[in-house]
Amino acid sequence: MQLGRVTGTVVATVKSEGLEGFKFLVVQPLNKQQEPVGRPVIAADAVYMAGPGELVYFVASREAAEALEPRFVPVDHAIVGIVDQVMT
Amino acid sequence: MQLGRVTGTVVATVKSEGLEGFKFLVVQPLNKQQEPVGRPVIAADAVYMAGPGELVYFVASREAAEALEPRFVPVDHAIVGIVDQVMT
Amino acid sequence: MQLGRVTGTVVATVKSEGLEGFKFLVVQPLNKQQEPVGRPVIAADAVYMAGPGELVYFVASREAAEALEPRFVPVDHAIVGIVDQVMT
Amino acid sequence: MQLGRVTGTVVATVKSEGLEGFKFLVVQPLNKQQEPVGRPVIAADAVYMAGPGELVYFVASREAAEALEPRFVPVDHAIVGIVDQVMT
Amino acid sequence: MQLGRVTGTVVATVKSEGLEGFKFLVVQPLNKQQEPVGRPVIAADAVYMAGPGELVYFVASREAAEALEPRFVPVDHAIVGIVDQVMT
Repeated sequence: MQLGRVTGTVVATVKSEGLEGFKFLVVQPLNKQQEPVGRPVIAADAVYMAGPGELVYFVASREAAEALEPRFVPVDHAIVGIVDQVMT
Repeated sequence: MQLGRVTGTVVATVKSEGLEGFKFLVVQPLNKQQEPVGRPVIAADAVYMAGPGELVYFVASREAAEALEPRFVPVDHAIVGIVDQVMT
Repeated sequence: MQLGRVTGTVVATVKSEGLEGFKFLVVQPLNKQQEPVGRPVIAADAVYMAGPGELVYFVASREAAEALEPRFVPVDHAIVGIVDQVMT
Repeated sequence: MQLGRVTGTVVATVKSEGLEGFKFLVVQPLNKQQEPVGRPVIAADAVYMAGPGELVYFVASREAAEALEPRFVPVDHAIVGIVDQVMT
Repeated sequence: MQLGRVTGTVVATVKSEGLEGFKFLVVQPLNKQQEPVGRPVIAADAVYMAGPGELVYFVASREAAEALEPRFVPVDHAIVGIVDQVMT
């Protein structure tokens, strides 16, 4: 999983079958200092509570679909937790 | 998923078995400012309506094949939505 | 797998279903000289003994979930060994 | 999938079980201008006709094995098409 | 698959369940000129004959586990061939 910050919402009318029920958020990956690094990704919200501005961690690749119901959806990034704190 | 813009179409006569029915588009990944970043990828069109010039989001890796019918095809990138707007 | 050093712990109250039982650690990937390189990842602790400061190796992508019990969880990085020594 | 150009052939006597029947080619990934970019990969030839010098597109990760017969082989890159033309 | 050179061996007493039987080697990925590029990875030896100094090719991600017996192990890189020669 990676740390990221939610920065926006994607609005799309034409979608692939199976994606109708999901909310898609723009997530900016962060480095150790929680600064933006690399390209933003578009992630399904698997905690159903994430919103712009929040610090989250997201899962990528095959496992992202495991966070969703139903599971066999063409999704490769999903937010799986809202971070309260990173203790170092 | 990632944001991208469709920039072209791939014409290929010799293909691996199972890929005959699909349209393959060249998609340029975009950064937060929707500027080109990184290498273009070749993605199957899973919304059956995407074309050059359009802003799309695409899924990569194992999940790309979940967007297609039949599912067990050697495809690792698929366009799964046409973006109307990104709200930030 | 990759070499990494555990640098912190993630505290998250809101999590995706199925992630309640796991400990999530911040792991900094290392290069050949065991210097930090690239972004830290958040990995599940599959040896149940890893902690801050330790040299570990972690598995990424689909195989991370294979290290956990139960297996069908949305996890894409897992610590699978604590390194005693790298012989070169 | 990504665009690439075949630049060589790999000769290996000692191979993992299940890889005896396949031809492995060195493929250099290309950018939009079809210039070399990044590291070359070693890909199985799933069209059974690709050779040095040809412009191809290849699939990576889990889906590469879907292009081969039998499917359960430890292969993560496969050439799935020979490109006639890229229309932009 | 990618080209790499074996540069070391990993010694780890504490391992995730299912990894007891495998030998793990440090592999440095190589570019076209067979020079080191990027971070080393830790790969399971699926040819059971690889050792420090040898030129190998390795498979990454989901397919790495296909090279091993048993298959459902948390391994994401495996050496699947020892290279005799790269013909270009």
